[in-house]
Amino acid sequence: MFLMKISIIGFGAVGQGVAKAISSTQQRIKKKYNLKIDIVAAADSKGAAIREDGLDPQKLIEVKSEKGSVAYYPDHGHENIDGLQVLDEVEYDCLVEVTPTNIITGEPGKSLITKAMKDGKDVVTSNKGHLSLFYKELIDLARENNVNFKFEASVGGAMPIINFAQETLPSSRIESIIGILNGTTNFILSRMTAEGSSYEQTLKEAQELGIAETDPTQDVEGLDAACKSVILANAILGRECTLDDVEVTGITRITPEAIELAKEDGYHIKLIAEISHDILRVGPRLVKETSPYAVDGTLNMATLRTDLAGEITVIGKGAGSLETASAILTDIINIWKSRQS
Amino acid sequence: MFLMKISIIGFGAVGQGVAKAISSTQQRIKKKYNLKIDIVAAADSKGAAIREDGLDPQKLIEVKSEKGSVAYYPDHGHENIDGLQVLDEVEYDCLVEVTPTNIITGEPGKSLITKAMKDGKDVVTSNKGHLSLFYKELIDLARENNVNFKFEASVGGAMPIINFAQETLPSSRIESIIGILNGTTNFILSRMTAEGSSYEQTLKEAQELGIAETDPTQDVEGLDAACKSVILANAILGRECTLDDVEVTGITRITPEAIELAKEDGYHIKLIAEISHDILRVGPRLVKETSPYAVDGTLNMATLRTDLAGEITVIGKGAGSLETASAILTDIINIWKSRQS
Repeated sequence: MFLMKISIIGFGAVGQGVAKAISSTQQRIKKKYNLKIDIVAAADSKGAAIREDGLDPQKLIEVKSEKGSVAYYPDHGHENIDGLQVLDEVEYDCLVEVTPTNIITGEPGKSLITKAMKDGKDVVTSNKGHLSLFYKELIDLARENNVNFKFEASVGGAMPIINFAQETLPSSRIESIIGILNGTTNFILSRMTAEGSSYEQTLKEAQELGIAETDPTQDVEGLDAACKSVILANAILGRECTLDDVEVTGITRITPEAIELAKEDGYHIKLIAEISHDILRVGPRLVKETSPYAVDGTLNMATLRTDLAGEITVIGKGAGSLETASAILTDIINIWKSRQS
Repeated sequence: MFLMKISIIGFGAVGQGVAKAISSTQQRIKKKYNLKIDIVAAADSKGAAIREDGLDPQKLIEVKSEKGSVAYYPDHGHENIDGLQVLDEVEYDCLVEVTPTNIITGEPGKSLITKAMKDGKDVVTSNKGHLSLFYKELIDLARENNVNFKFEASVGGAMPIINFAQETLPSSRIESIIGILNGTTNFILSRMTAEGSSYEQTLKEAQELGIAETDPTQDVEGLDAACKSVILANAILGRECTLDDVEVTGITRITPEAIELAKEDGYHIKLIAEISHDILRVGPRLVKETSPYAVDGTLNMATLRTDLAGEITVIGKGAGSLETASAILTDIINIWKSRQS
C-alpha cells in the first residue's frame, strides 16, 4: 500500500469537499490504485489540525461545522497558526491549496504554493487568483523545483477541461476554446430567458438561492470567467498572458427585451469566453438555441476547436463543493500516478 | 527518434483518413513525441501495398482514388493478397484494423485482430462488429498475449468517450452513460423537428446528402447505437454483455405529429442509448430542448453520471473520415506512450 500525505490549506466549501471526497472514496482508491491518501494537516483562518498519522476526514468536517474551525479538532488542534507555519510543522507530500481567490494579490495562495514548491512538494489548487496573475512564474517555479503543479479545479469545477485537453487529445492541435465558464451568470441568463424577468430581479433570486454571492461583482462583471480564460490560454494554448490581457464585458446591462428578440430568432444570450492564439475575451454573445452553447442553469461548457477531431465539447457542473473536490482528487491521483512511473 | 510501424487493413474512408492524418501530423508528432509513424502495409479488398521502409501516405490515397485499390501502388503493390497474408509479409508493431463492420460474424476484423494479437502485435480498431459480439474474448486475448488493444474510434468517431472515461475521471465512479451514439438518426430527427417533415421524406434527404446509407437499416433500427452501447457497457462499466443483450427500438415509426407534440412542451425526440449496471437499451426518448441531450445534426453526445463529479457530458462529431482517424491516431500515440513507460 502506497501512502500520500496531503496538507489542505483553506477549509471552506472546497476544502471540506476534499475531506468528504477522500472519506467516501477511500476504499475504492485503495482497491484500484493501492493508494491511501492521508490528510496530515487542515488549516482555516483561525488555526489548524495537524497529525502525522492522518486526521479523520469526517471528524474534521464535524469540528468545522460545530465549532467554526478545525483549530478545535480534539488533541490535534492548534489555534493562531497560519498556513505557512502549518507547512513547516508537518511532513507531507502534496499541498492542496484551496484558500479564497484574490485577483489583486493572489494571496495567501501564492505564498503558500511558493513555499511548498521550494520545499519540494507537489501542489494541487482550485484557486484562480494567483494563476490568472502569475501563471508563468508559478509554472516555472514548479519546473525548477521538479514538482507537480495541477489546477483542474480552478476552471469549471467538475468539468475536466484541462486534463481533457492535455491528455485525451494527443493527436489533434487545439486551435481555440469557446465556452461558458461561470455558472452564476449562466443561471441568471437562463432564468431571464425562461421567465422574461429583469437582470436585477433575477440576480436577487440567484442570491436568495445561494447561487450568486452578496457581492456578485466578480461573477456578473465577467471577472471570474476572465480568470478562467487566462488559465486555459496558458495551460492549453501555451500563451503567456494574465488577467490584464482579457477584454471583459459583464452581463449587467442585458435587458429582457434583448433576450426576447434573440429568442424570437432561435438564439439565447450567454456570457461566452473566447480563447485563441489571437483572441482573449469574455462577453455576452448570441448562441443558437440547439447548439452545445445553449446549456442551461449553472452548467459550464467548453468547446475545443481542433485540426483533426473537429469541435469537441465538454459540459459539467461548474461549481459545488463535492464536484470541485472530485477534480482535486483526480489531480492528486494523477500526481501519484506520475510519481510511480 | 522512435519508430512505430503500422499495418492498415481496410482502406475505405477511415483507412484513408488515417493515412491523411498521419501525413498531416507527421511534423508535429515528431516534434512533440520524438515519434515517427510509418505505414508499412495498407490493404483493401483487392490487394495491398507493402514496404518495410514506409509507404508514402499521400501516394496511397492518390493510388486508391485514381485506380480503385492500393494494390496498384507503384513498385510495392500486390494484387490478390488478403489481409491475413499481409500480416505475415511484413514486420510491424501495430495493426490498424478498419475493415467494414459485420454484426453477424464480426469478420474479417475478428480473424485479423486474433492473428495480430497472437503474433504479439498491438491492435487499434474502429470496427464495432467483433467488439459487440466478442468483446470479452478479444480483451482476454489481448491480455494473454500482453498486447495493447484500443478502440476509441469504434464509438462516437471523434468524441473521445472511452479514453475520457478511463483516464480523465480517476476519482469518480461512473454509474451510467446516457447518450446519442448515432449521427445519422440524430440528423434525421433534428431535421424532422426543424422542418416538420415525415420520416420517409427526411430519410431520403439524408440519403441524398450521403448522411444515410442506401440500406439505412443498421442506423435507423438502432443497431449501430446498440453495438456502441455494448462496447461502452463493457469498456467503461465492466459489464460482460453482447449485442443480444440490448433492448433496441429504432426511429422508423416516429411521426411528425409526435415530434410536434413534444416540441410544444419544450421537448425533442432523440434516439437515446441508456447504459448502466442494470439497463442496456436504445430507443426514442423525450429530452428537454435546453439539455445537453438536445444537440443537433450529426453530432454524438454522451453523459456520464458519476458519484463525485455529477454529470459530465462530451459532445463531438460522430463520424467523418478525418475525425474518426484522429481517434485512431490518439490510440496509436497512447499505445506508444504506454510502451515507453
